[in-house]
Amino acid sequence: MLPVDLPGTVRDALLAPLVDHHCNGVRRDDLGRAGFELLISGSGSPAPPGTTHFDTPLGVAVRRWCGPLLDLEPHAPPAVYLARRTELGAAEVNRRMLAGAGVVAFLVDSAAQDGELLGAAEMGRLGGAAADELVRVEHIERDVAASAQLAVDYLDDLGEELTARAARAVALKTVAGALCGLDLEAGRPARGAVIAAANRRLADPKAPLTDPVLLHYLVWSAVDVAKERNLPVQFHGGFAGLAGPGVFGGPGASSAAGGPGGPLGEPHRADPARLSAFAAALQPLGVPMILLHCYPFHRQAAHLAATFPHVYVDVGFAPQHTAAATRVIDELLELAPFHKLLYGSGACGLAETAYLAALAHRRALAVALAARIGTGEWSAADAARVAHMIGSANARRIYRL
Amino acid sequence: MLPVDLPGTVRDALLAPLVDHHCNGVRRDDLGRAGFELLISGSGSPAPPGTTHFDTPLGVAVRRWCGPLLDLEPHAPPAVYLARRTELGAAEVNRRMLAGAGVVAFLVDSAAQDGELLGAAEMGRLGGAAADELVRVEHIERDVAASAQLAVDYLDDLGEELTARAARAVALKTVAGALCGLDLEAGRPARGAVIAAANRRLADPKAPLTDPVLLHYLVWSAVDVAKERNLPVQFHGGFAGLAGPGVFGGPGASSAAGGPGGPLGEPHRADPARLSAFAAALQPLGVPMILLHCYPFHRQAAHLAATFPHVYVDVGFAPQHTAAATRVIDELLELAPFHKLLYGSGACGLAETAYLAALAHRRALAVALAARIGTGEWSAADAARVAHMIGSANARRIYRL
Amino acid sequence: MLPVDLPGTVRDALLAPLVDHHCNGVRRDDLGRAGFELLISGSGSPAPPGTTHFDTPLGVAVRRWCGPLLDLEPHAPPAVYLARRTELGAAEVNRRMLAGAGVVAFLVDSAAQDGELLGAAEMGRLGGAAADELVRVEHIERDVAASAQLAVDYLDDLGEELTARAARAVALKTVAGALCGLDLEAGRPARGAVIAAANRRLADPKAPLTDPVLLHYLVWSAVDVAKERNLPVQFHGGFAGLAGPGVFGGPGASSAAGGPGGPLGEPHRADPARLSAFAAALQPLGVPMILLHCYPFHRQAAHLAATFPHVYVDVGFAPQHTAAATRVIDELLELAPFHKLLYGSGACGLAETAYLAALAHRRALAVALAARIGTGEWSAADAARVAHMIGSANARRIYRL
Repeated sequence: MLPVDLPGTVRDALLAPLVDHHCNGVRRDDLGRAGFELLISGSGSPAPPGTTHFDTPLGVAVRRWCGPLLDLEPHAPPAVYLARRTELGAAEVNRRMLAGAGVVAFLVDSAAQDGELLGAAEMGRLGGAAADELVRVEHIERDVAASAQLAVDYLDDLGEELTARAARAVALKTVAGALCGLDLEAGRPARGAVIAAANRRLADPKAPLTDPVLLHYLVWSAVDVAKERNLPVQFHGGFAGLAGPGVFGGPGASSAAGGPGGPLGEPHRADPARLSAFAAALQPLGVPMILLHCYPFHRQAAHLAATFPHVYVDVGFAPQHTAAATRVIDELLELAPFHKLLYGSGACGLAETAYLAALAHRRALAVALAARIGTGEWSAADAARVAHMIGSANARRIYRL
Repeated sequence: MLPVDLPGTVRDALLAPLVDHHCNGVRRDDLGRAGFELLISGSGSPAPPGTTHFDTPLGVAVRRWCGPLLDLEPHAPPAVYLARRTELGAAEVNRRMLAGAGVVAFLVDSAAQDGELLGAAEMGRLGGAAADELVRVEHIERDVAASAQLAVDYLDDLGEELTARAARAVALKTVAGALCGLDLEAGRPARGAVIAAANRRLADPKAPLTDPVLLHYLVWSAVDVAKERNLPVQFHGGFAGLAGPGVFGGPGASSAAGGPGGPLGEPHRADPARLSAFAAALQPLGVPMILLHCYPFHRQAAHLAATFPHVYVDVGFAPQHTAAATRVIDELLELAPFHKLLYGSGACGLAETAYLAALAHRRALAVALAARIGTGEWSAADAARVAHMIGSANARRIYRL
Repeated sequence: MLPVDLPGTVRDALLAPLVDHHCNGVRRDDLGRAGFELLISGSGSPAPPGTTHFDTPLGVAVRRWCGPLLDLEPHAPPAVYLARRTELGAAEVNRRMLAGAGVVAFLVDSAAQDGELLGAAEMGRLGGAAADELVRVEHIERDVAASAQLAVDYLDDLGEELTARAARAVALKTVAGALCGLDLEAGRPARGAVIAAANRRLADPKAPLTDPVLLHYLVWSAVDVAKERNLPVQFHGGFAGLAGPGVFGGPGASSAAGGPGGPLGEPHRADPARLSAFAAALQPLGVPMILLHCYPFHRQAAHLAATFPHVYVDVGFAPQHTAAATRVIDELLELAPFHKLLYGSGACGLAETAYLAALAHRRALAVALAARIGTGEWSAADAARVAHMIGSANARRIYRL
């Protein structure tokens, strides 16, 4: 599984079970070719005529690495892969992939409770792992907006619901960065502005939430609940899920995220460097901020983690970006404190993505550590310790698992 | 020519003739040292006292790789190289370099029709290749502004001229990103604002075009013509040509591009991520958008290509950036759909740049593919197929060659 | 010391004494564990409970490379390292590290004159090197603001003091980019606005200077003095020192730099690409602009150096970014003119950082040159010449040492 030779202790640390501190649910149903292609693309659109989404970095990886888990030769053609997938059935495929990931605990976005996706408990059971929930705050808001009549009720309900859901979760998670950009203001929004925004919201509660005032209020509400319950808050960043339904898990969710033409039309605003002023404002509160799959702004995220004691960085990717793992992990090890890095699969839609993320992480970290040991820059003991920290120990400490 | 061992099918695919989907004209005349140095620099300024533009990545590459095509040893000193160039004469040098590129078709920016640059037909003839034209819309606008008297005539003439020129071309091309930044608004500019801007323009028609309203209008006009004629539109992005005459091909053009102190003073606005909202607006029209040499924002370009079915990415560089090819091609293969990548030389001014771009492409792609085959991540068959797609097949499909 | 085999001439060029064209003072006193950890972190905060700042790229490098200079085995534990450091005493440690750097001349930020840091003369003496001063203009301003009563006096004093201090220095240096962002306007600020800003400043002269008008005025004043005295101006950029006291050298300085929550909350505004319009405005004056440690925006800095004849790039890092040296030097050699690159340690606080920077530079450049020689792209003669240019010759020319 590992592409390089390593001292036994380092090898063991890399092959030890991982805590997957951030994933989304995967589909429970059997998928046809069109549906499967949409999920490997993350774009929300079919491939242009004459092309296929299998001709992508993720498509190649599925054929290479996931085929053998379905008893196929590596690099089997897409049609063969999909036929075998159908033959085995989604439940068996999901079981093989999730178990194959070698994960001891999945932390799963609560949006996965939506019908066709596996929820946290199911992910854990199929993967032979523990499982906990990450409360996506925009998901809570959607439900509250659908039921509240008055702005004050809406705000009260939001607070109550966040508190209630956080009681069963290990962290809160926000995708506000994908909805209105990560340049959140450092101060709390004024009560009057929030009431006005809530009234606008209730006039059209099924529209996607993109109002910066309300998103800003929502994030601060999440921070308050997180502080009270001693939980971290995850901030979605980078290109993952921008302008596509990918990370937002399944139909319907894509419109909630704005989709092409919405605020996601500004991927440069997903740069976590823009969170710096907000991070500085949160520092006195001591609420841990976890920056989720920040590629290609991972150096910026690493800078924040090196600067602020309460900021952490996901060594994870959207599934579509997993092929960049070797380079990105190397760049993170150059810049970030090792006690600030967390493994996450960012798995989404296909169980294959949970397996591929774990594989890519172990292989890429193996290459990075072997290079450092080979030049004498790191000792094997340090390498094994850092692999253990990133793979599970940091997550256990920060999420208090 | 290739720096690594590869299976025969992959080697053949890499050495097969390329479609160069984007280049500029090269100079037809003999060049003295000062003129040659200006063209390898792309800065529009002589090197500071005590230095030479040969001490650059491009200068070293010219001596290393182009020398042998002029019957010199690799790494011959600049003076020897230039003496031999003069001895052979520009026509013979151009013939050797263009033919040496191994190109089956050149798509050439129409600005090359200006006197001292070779036009598309000449490029093709010297290079033993087919040749087609890319209509630079700012070039059309310059001519229209010079002759129109009234704003309404200006706008009518612009539409007519774009239509007429597009009839003989395979694509339109805009450098608006270098003139006013790539953050084009998603909506069309209002008629009144356009008329007002046209009036301002006609009051000073020889000034460089930097008015964002008019550039915005010009780009939308190009899109309309492209849709009607089923052509793609190329968008210039990245650092190439910013604040220098490089990509704008020859004297006079540099002032049209603003030059130092103009709007080119904001290279961070050449990030194609800023095109996202505009790309979303174009999606329903189905007009292919080709993002030209986006370095160092190629990951952002790859993200757009992965997100939008109508967006494509040039695996090409300004000549001054060719030395980055190995790293950049590797990064693009990590992130972009393979059916979205197109080889382009970005050749400009010197025929050497067409040869070096093709060489850098083949060598860099060879390294990237060999690494993937070596670790077993890709099959040789996939590698050969992807090399063929990037080298020519994608361009044939998109430009309908 | 060098990790690869190289031809003798290249090896000699790499091992030849360096001109360190930019460093800060290092602490003269003995340091306890808490103080030492703060200085290797650069964040200004202790590591979170259960973690240590030694678990960072810089922490590992100190144990690996600096330990042997203190007669320890590589990779000795932090406690052993610090005990040995105390045993030898700060003066002896500083002497070993500074001398070990193999530097022939240190150019030292004038802020180092503050009590607990070694000044330029002391750095030179301990390091067996010449030493010169870089006048930090914000440092001058701080003193002038503390003593002036009226706005006109403040402005007069500023001009006089800058002129007086520049007479003894080899360059001026500004950290305005870290205080208000690098998007300086191209024009000079209006006299009236400056007077008004000066009055505000004198009402609260101990506050950190973050007023963009006044910083803008200060930078232009520095440029005027530099032009008169034929000196370069260094511009601080990139992430170094942002939101932390790191590069600003010692207690007190951190508040002057804004600190978390101040203007440093916008690291994306430290991108030197934003200096382009200002650089274009300075081009006619011929005042050299030196872009200091621009990581992770080094490609942007290289682009400016390739575009403008008067712009130069530091091949240097904040100490916390030194682990990225191999990748960054390789990327700079792809893009920047070789006569525009300057070695600088960016050393700060700990003498270890001066030693590690020199070591990282030599090792990283060795790897980059060996790769180019190995593929035949560069000749050994070119490689040796470029190593010499970056290591010392460019600095001697530009600073007229």
